[in-house]
Amino acid sequence: MEREWLSSVLTGTIPLGQAMGLEITRLDDSGISLGLPLAPNVNDKGTAFGGAMASAMILAGWSLPRLLLRRAGISADLVIGRCELRFLEPVGAAFQVHCNWPEADQCQQFLVELTSHGRGRLDLTPWVEHEDREAATLSARYTALAKSTST
Amino acid sequence: MEREWLSSVLTGTIPLGQAMGLEITRLDDSGISLGLPLAPNVNDKGTAFGGAMASAMILAGWSLPRLLLRRAGISADLVIGRCELRFLEPVGAAFQVHCNWPEADQCQQFLVELTSHGRGRLDLTPWVEHEDREAATLSARYTALAKSTST
Repeated sequence: MEREWLSSVLTGTIPLGQAMGLEITRLDDSGISLGLPLAPNVNDKGTAFGGAMASAMILAGWSLPRLLLRRAGISADLVIGRCELRFLEPVGAAFQVHCNWPEADQCQQFLVELTSHGRGRLDLTPWVEHEDREAATLSARYTALAKSTST
Repeated sequence: MEREWLSSVLTGTIPLGQAMGLEITRLDDSGISLGLPLAPNVNDKGTAFGGAMASAMILAGWSLPRLLLRRAGISADLVIGRCELRFLEPVGAAFQVHCNWPEADQCQQFLVELTSHGRGRLDLTPWVEHEDREAATLSARYTALAKSTST
């Protein structure tokens, strides 16, 4: 149910997720994995385009705080701010992007800060896996912003 | 001629460039600009998806050293390594991505290092423009790697 909902967000409301052929291959207590075929994400060298890997990592990371908000029944905008990308080696085949859940107290803190101060932050480090190695990594801070209400 | 060639690389050999509706809107002595419509690049909030902006900035930056290599008649792989992304404000309409040429001596150095040491580096800072402001920036190092030859 939750997985179907997230899938519809990632590929239904974000056209690039659909164009990339992205699908959720795992969503459990340890984290999320997205699977992507090479063909729609290829570059001129026949390997995965850096922008496609960046997009998939941004979405894998974004999915986790998005699920925290949904589970808590909180309506908030969730944005990515400054982040660092590293491209470590070329990816010449279909690939997986993973993001692990942070510690439970960090997830709790994210929600507490959001509800008490109107802004919650969560640091995440999704990565691209290829042949059992990290092929690319993203270090990103996601910020949830409470929607302004009339006072 | 050069512009048509680059356009065919960005949208012909890179499917995501095509899916994003990317087009070269300027290529001159000061730099390159890419234009992107909002619809294929939108996110769940109705603004430009960070991954689409990242992809367009990566391509705008990549285009400049790629043109340097072509003009010099050098065959080399051109890759992006570590880079920093900043998302500064939401973009709710079609947008432009710009990248300026570095100083001439930096371009020269890039080619000299490549031909003499097999590896040339160029630092570039493409950005997304929206309503005359920077909406996102990328600080990236592009590395050209001479193709290995039999000795």
